[in-house]
Amino acid sequence: FNSCSFGGVDVRRPRRMVLVKAEAAGINPDIRKNEDKVVDSVVVAELAKPLTAYCRCWRSGTFPLCDGSHVKHNKATGDNVGPLLVKK
Amino acid sequence: FNSCSFGGVDVRRPRRMVLVKAEAAGINPDIRKNEDKVVDSVVVAELAKPLTAYCRCWRSGTFPLCDGSHVKHNKATGDNVGPLLVKK
Ligand code: FES
Ligand code: FES
Repeated sequence: FNSCSFGGVDVRRPRRMVLVKAEAAGINPDIRKNEDKVVDSVVVAELAKPLTAYCRCWRSGTFPLCDGSHVKHNKATGDNVGPLLVKK
Repeated sequence: FNSCSFGGVDVRRPRRMVLVKAEAAGINPDIRKNEDKVVDSVVVAELAKPLTAYCRCWRSGTFPLCDGSHVKHNKATGDNVGPLLVKK
Protein backbone atom coordinates (compact mmCIF):
# COMPACT_ATOMS: atom_id res chain seq x y z
CA PHE A 1 0.00 0.00 0.00
CA ASN A 2 1.08 3.57 -0.59
CA SER A 3 -1.23 5.13 1.97
CA CYS A 4 -3.27 3.47 4.70
CA SER A 5 -5.33 4.95 7.46
CA PHE A 6 -5.08 2.91 10.64
CA GLY A 7 -6.77 4.16 13.78
CA GLY A 8 -6.90 7.61 12.18
CA VAL A 9 -3.10 7.65 11.58
CA ASP A 10 -1.86 7.78 7.98
CA VAL A 11 0.95 5.38 7.19
CA ARG A 12 2.80 6.18 4.01
CA ARG A 13 5.64 4.76 2.01
CA PRO A 14 7.33 6.01 -1.18
CA ARG A 15 5.59 5.42 -4.49
CA ARG A 16 6.45 2.22 -6.27
CA MET A 17 9.46 2.67 -8.58
CA VAL A 18 9.03 1.73 -12.25
CA LEU A 19 12.18 0.87 -14.21
CA VAL A 20 11.82 1.18 -17.98
CA LYS A 21 14.70 -0.35 -19.90
CA ALA A 22 15.17 1.52 -23.18
CA GLU A 23 17.09 -1.44 -24.60
CA ALA A 24 14.03 -3.67 -24.29
CA ALA A 25 11.96 -1.48 -26.60
CA GLY A 26 11.63 -1.68 -30.36
CA ILE A 27 12.44 1.37 -32.47
CA ASN A 28 9.97 0.85 -35.33
CA PRO A 29 6.36 1.21 -34.16
CA ASP A 30 4.61 1.16 -37.56
CA ILE A 31 6.64 0.60 -40.72
CA ARG A 32 5.99 -2.66 -42.66
CA LYS A 33 5.34 -4.67 -39.49
CA ASN A 34 4.23 -7.55 -41.75
CA GLU A 35 7.90 -8.06 -42.71
CA ASP A 36 10.33 -10.01 -40.47
CA LYS A 37 13.12 -7.56 -41.30
CA VAL A 38 12.78 -4.30 -43.18
CA VAL A 39 15.71 -4.08 -45.60
CA ASP A 40 15.82 -1.64 -48.51
CA SER A 41 18.14 -1.37 -51.49
CA VAL A 42 19.42 1.69 -53.32
CA VAL A 43 20.92 1.15 -56.76
CA VAL A 44 23.11 4.22 -57.12
CA ALA A 45 22.98 4.21 -60.94
CA GLU A 46 19.20 4.69 -60.64
CA LEU A 47 19.34 7.72 -58.34
CA ALA A 48 17.55 10.68 -59.90
CA LYS A 49 18.89 13.51 -57.76
CA PRO A 50 22.42 14.52 -56.74
CA LEU A 51 21.45 14.06 -53.09
CA THR A 52 18.87 11.68 -51.57
CA ALA A 53 18.14 11.44 -47.82
CA TYR A 54 17.25 8.03 -46.36
CA CYS A 55 15.38 7.68 -43.09
CA ARG A 56 16.99 6.13 -40.02
CA CYS A 57 14.38 7.26 -37.45
CA TRP A 58 11.56 4.92 -38.55
CA ARG A 59 9.05 7.77 -38.38
CA SER A 60 9.02 8.91 -42.03
CA GLY A 61 5.78 8.96 -43.96
CA THR A 62 7.82 8.28 -47.12
CA PHE A 63 10.09 5.52 -45.74
CA PRO A 64 12.73 4.49 -46.82
CA LEU A 65 13.14 8.16 -47.76
CA CYS A 66 13.50 10.83 -45.09
CA ASP A 67 10.63 13.33 -44.93
CA GLY A 68 11.97 15.36 -42.01
CA SER A 69 9.99 13.48 -39.32
CA HIS A 70 13.23 12.92 -37.34
CA VAL A 71 12.92 16.58 -36.22
CA LYS A 72 9.62 15.93 -34.42
CA HIS A 73 10.92 12.63 -33.01
CA ASN A 74 14.07 14.27 -31.65
CA LYS A 75 12.10 17.14 -30.11
CA ALA A 76 9.56 14.82 -28.47
CA THR A 77 12.12 12.40 -27.03
CA GLY A 78 15.40 14.28 -26.66
CA ASP A 79 16.93 11.92 -29.21
CA ASN A 80 19.57 12.92 -31.81
CA VAL A 81 18.91 10.80 -34.88
CA GLY A 82 19.04 11.87 -38.51
CA PRO A 83 19.14 10.56 -42.08
CA LEU A 84 21.80 8.98 -44.26
CA LEU A 85 22.58 11.24 -47.22
CA VAL A 86 23.48 9.48 -50.47
CA LYS A 87 25.35 11.70 -52.91
CA LYS A 88 25.96 11.00 -56.58
CA PHE B 1 -3.04 1.69 -1.39
CA ASN B 2 -3.01 -1.77 -2.93
CA SER B 3 -3.61 -3.69 0.26
CA CYS B 4 -4.65 -2.43 3.68
CA SER B 5 -5.53 -4.33 6.80
CA PHE B 6 -8.32 -2.63 8.75
CA GLY B 7 -9.68 -4.37 11.82
CA GLY B 8 -8.17 -7.60 10.53
CA VAL B 9 -10.00 -7.33 7.17
CA ASP B 10 -7.90 -6.97 4.00
CA VAL B 11 -9.09 -4.30 1.61
CA ARG B 12 -7.63 -4.61 -1.89
CA ARG B 13 -7.80 -2.75 -5.16
CA PRO B 14 -6.17 -3.50 -8.54
CA ARG B 15 -2.48 -2.66 -8.96
CA ARG B 16 -1.67 0.78 -10.26
CA MET B 17 -1.55 0.77 -14.08
CA VAL B 18 1.59 2.10 -15.77
CA LEU B 19 1.22 3.36 -19.33
CA VAL B 20 4.48 3.42 -21.28
CA LYS B 21 4.25 5.35 -24.53
CA ALA B 22 6.72 3.89 -27.04
CA GLU B 23 6.61 7.14 -29.01
CA ALA B 24 8.09 9.01 -26.05
CA ALA B 25 11.33 7.02 -26.14
CA GLY B 26 14.48 7.76 -28.08
CA ILE B 27 15.87 5.12 -30.46
CA ASN B 28 19.59 5.89 -30.19
CA PRO B 29 20.94 5.10 -26.71
CA ASP B 30 24.66 5.54 -27.40
CA ILE B 31 25.85 6.71 -30.81
CA ARG B 32 27.52 10.16 -30.98
CA LYS B 33 25.30 11.62 -28.24
CA ASN B 34 27.54 14.72 -28.30
CA GLU B 35 25.96 15.65 -31.67
CA ASP B 36 22.58 17.40 -31.91
CA LYS B 37 21.66 15.32 -34.96
CA VAL B 38 23.58 12.37 -36.34
CA VAL B 39 23.66 12.75 -40.14
CA ASP B 40 26.06 10.79 -42.36
CA SER B 41 26.94 11.15 -46.03
CA VAL B 42 27.82 8.52 -48.60
CA VAL B 43 29.51 9.67 -51.78
CA VAL B 44 28.67 6.86 -54.16
CA ALA B 45 31.72 7.45 -56.38
CA GLU B 46 33.88 6.64 -53.34
CA LEU B 47 32.22 3.34 -52.50
CA ALA B 48 34.77 0.54 -52.51
CA LYS B 49 32.49 -2.49 -52.69
CA PRO B 50 29.58 -3.38 -54.98
CA LEU B 51 27.31 -3.55 -51.92
CA THR B 52 27.54 -1.64 -48.63
CA ALA B 53 25.06 -2.03 -45.76
CA TYR B 54 24.22 1.03 -43.65
CA CYS B 55 22.79 0.75 -40.14
CA ARG B 56 19.28 1.92 -39.31
CA CYS B 57 18.97 0.23 -35.88
CA TRP B 58 21.41 2.49 -34.00
CA ARG B 59 23.05 -0.53 -32.37
CA SER B 60 26.00 -1.09 -34.73
CA GLY B 61 29.53 -1.07 -33.39
CA THR B 62 30.68 0.23 -36.79
CA PHE B 63 27.99 2.90 -37.30
CA PRO B 64 27.12 4.26 -39.86
CA LEU B 65 27.88 0.83 -41.31
CA CYS B 66 25.75 -2.20 -40.39
CA ASP B 67 27.59 -4.88 -38.42
CA GLY B 68 24.63 -7.22 -38.01
CA SER B 69 23.63 -5.92 -34.55
CA HIS B 70 20.04 -5.45 -35.80
CA VAL B 71 19.62 -9.24 -35.43
CA LYS B 72 20.22 -9.13 -31.66
CA HIS B 73 18.06 -6.00 -31.31
CA ASN B 74 15.17 -7.60 -33.20
CA LYS B 75 15.42 -10.79 -31.17
CA ALA B 76 15.54 -8.95 -27.84
CA THR B 77 12.64 -6.60 -28.59
CA GLY B 78 10.44 -8.26 -31.22
CA ASP B 79 11.31 -5.44 -33.60
CA ASN B 80 11.78 -5.82 -37.38
CA VAL B 81 14.43 -3.32 -38.40
CA GLY B 82 17.26 -3.80 -40.87
CA PRO B 83 19.87 -1.95 -42.91
CA LEU B 84 19.81 0.12 -46.07
CA LEU B 85 21.81 -1.59 -48.81
CA VAL B 86 23.65 0.70 -51.22
CA LYS B 87 24.56 -0.99 -54.51
CA LYS B 88 26.99 0.31 -57.11
S1 FES C 1 12.36 11.16 -41.38
FE1 FES C 1 13.51 9.58 -40.47
S2 FES C 1 15.55 10.30 -40.57
FE2 FES C 1 14.41 11.88 -41.45
S1 FES D 1 23.57 -3.17 -37.31
FE1 FES D 1 22.03 -1.65 -37.39
S2 FES D 1 20.90 -2.22 -39.16
FE2 FES D 1 22.41 -3.72 -39.04
